[in-house]
Amino acid sequence: MSDYRSQVDIRLSGGDPDFEAPPHVKEAAIAAIREGGPWTHYSFSGVPEFKEAVVDYYSKYGVKYEPSNVYPTAGSSPALMAVIANLLGPGDECVVFDPTFGTHFRTPPLFGATVSHVPLDVEGFHMDPDTLRKKVSDRSKLMILCNPNNPAGTVYTRKELQAIADVAAEHDIVVLADEIYNEFVYDDREHIAFPSLSEMKERTVVVMSFSKNFAMTGWRLGYYIAPDALAEKLRRLPVAAAPTTFVQKAGAAALTGPYEPVKMMREEYDKRRRYFVKRLNEMDGISCHMFEGAFYAYPDIKELGITSAKFVEEFAEKEKVLLSDGSRFGPEIAPGHLRIPLVLPVEVLETVATRMERYLKTL
Amino acid sequence: MSDYRSQVDIRLSGGDPDFEAPPHVKEAAIAAIREGGPWTHYSFSGVPEFKEAVVDYYSKYGVKYEPSNVYPTAGSSPALMAVIANLLGPGDECVVFDPTFGTHFRTPPLFGATVSHVPLDVEGFHMDPDTLRKKVSDRSKLMILCNPNNPAGTVYTRKELQAIADVAAEHDIVVLADEIYNEFVYDDREHIAFPSLSEMKERTVVVMSFSKNFAMTGWRLGYYIAPDALAEKLRRLPVAAAPTTFVQKAGAAALTGPYEPVKMMREEYDKRRRYFVKRLNEMDGISCHMFEGAFYAYPDIKELGITSAKFVEEFAEKEKVLLSDGSRFGPEIAPGHLRIPLVLPVEVLETVATRMERYLKTL
Repeated sequence: MSDYRSQVDIRLSGGDPDFEAPPHVKEAAIAAIREGGPWTHYSFSGVPEFKEAVVDYYSKYGVKYEPSNVYPTAGSSPALMAVIANLLGPGDECVVFDPTFGTHFRTPPLFGATVSHVPLDVEGFHMDPDTLRKKVSDRSKLMILCNPNNPAGTVYTRKELQAIADVAAEHDIVVLADEIYNEFVYDDREHIAFPSLSEMKERTVVVMSFSKNFAMTGWRLGYYIAPDALAEKLRRLPVAAAPTTFVQKAGAAALTGPYEPVKMMREEYDKRRRYFVKRLNEMDGISCHMFEGAFYAYPDIKELGITSAKFVEEFAEKEKVLLSDGSRFGPEIAPGHLRIPLVLPVEVLETVATRMERYLKTL
Repeated sequence: MSDYRSQVDIRLSGGDPDFEAPPHVKEAAIAAIREGGPWTHYSFSGVPEFKEAVVDYYSKYGVKYEPSNVYPTAGSSPALMAVIANLLGPGDECVVFDPTFGTHFRTPPLFGATVSHVPLDVEGFHMDPDTLRKKVSDRSKLMILCNPNNPAGTVYTRKELQAIADVAAEHDIVVLADEIYNEFVYDDREHIAFPSLSEMKERTVVVMSFSKNFAMTGWRLGYYIAPDALAEKLRRLPVAAAPTTFVQKAGAAALTGPYEPVKMMREEYDKRRRYFVKRLNEMDGISCHMFEGAFYAYPDIKELGITSAKFVEEFAEKEKVLLSDGSRFGPEIAPGHLRIPLVLPVEVLETVATRMERYLKTL
């Protein structure tokens, strides 16, 4: 493999925010470390204060859980793993949308399950219920809904979610609602929590994380929320690693607020979004929808006549900017896209756009 | 289930040290949180400073690894899971000693493997190579060696380890060396790292943790060390959850030292050991070997004529002290034992002993 990755001077490949965790979150962690005792020792079923804060936080979406439904994990990855590993086995099918986060479709086959990819509409990356119905079968046991979607930024409408709920109910499918970008929806859009839909609470496992919403990627804090009927099943294979105790204290502080830091991040991502999507659309051969949520530009580069993998490699080599290959987010709609996390300030994005324009002239 | 567990006033059930993490470790974490940037954001392959500190630390046992052989994990549980889940499948056999930590023999069957328990000698819990040989078969793919042993405190001699190495080499078995109590060996005993044995480095995965050695159970920091030849295999099922980035900074500080806090803890555990094992042996119907490592008293109560489960429950109900049922550490030698973690000061252990004596009179 070429070493083009290590030679770059601007990295826009991973979804690692350039913001710091809110100051009151850091202070909560520091105070807990100094206090010691229960905060620096193992918490067998999770910190009650954390689980109560999760319940309060999520109730803003109209769903009321009990603290006992909340399972803290060392980031959302172990939570995703717990759901996928425990609900899928040989002969089962997992339904995902295309494009979506790679873990959603790369993990089920590790446990013997097949994956059915539901292509989102190329225009705007929303979904068509008829397409969904065609992709579901009697073997479908789990559907993974990434809302807001990574990488396409889709914020699903109530009508779309209801269509998903109808299919889930008809086919008795559990829905894994990966909602880790829920604080970042733009314009007049609204994040609708999947379990808030009628009769969906009992068949939904929500997976959440502090990495994006609170810029806490290095803290390794996430959780899943599971109804009683599913909870025991999810612990058969004990792969849901526990998070640091004092980080749960910090997580409780993040959820409780103040929310000015989150608002500031949302506004800044929105500013970057408006700037960079416009710049992309001014480039010949590149078109990009104005994404609705999360913080990824997901431009279509098919008109350029080169693969996205080739674009990423050459652009890194020639212009020292590392983007991520959007084709890696699914086999159907994803090919021909770049994924560009807007995790650097507008002035850096300006440089990136300028270098892209220069690179395009060489094609 | 009775609620006897919640009614107790002295808990000696989990292996959660009553010590705090060393002060310089706490300060390292706090400084890293305040510094932010790379310390509060995700570290994709682990913190280099941490991995270098692990290499330096482990080299005191005469084994020299590269930082790239070190895989940080959110505690040792995800590390154990990564090894067991990735090296065992249906038809395979896992060899463990009896007694041993429950995860060692409860996890392999979750992945379709069978378990062969090698009984340790009842006197002193050491091993007989002939017994080991009888318990190994062509299906044996993994052997889990807990050294020092939880719950029995065995510190394996070089001769015993060499016998294990011979069997591993003959049958082409990978050895998972769970050495998380390595700092706590008493008297003139020495912790011998399994991969330090000739030709064992390439077939050993070492699993380590900061929970016991540095009293950091709530920090969720562990790691495994794998030779290049095994490393890729261990990541097929990606169950090895990453630890918090700034906790890796704290872990590096723990490993680098000073070691006075560790020495203090070892001396204190030793004091408790001498006191409490003596008290146990003064009780009619109870006998306890002077354990050699870790911090668990593991008395034999078979002469009392009641099960260890019954003892634990009745003792908690009548005397408000919660111990752990030693029979849960294996099917062969473990039954008829209590496991008593010496994680409270001598004055509390004195109360526990007095209450045990009182309880024994009621039998």
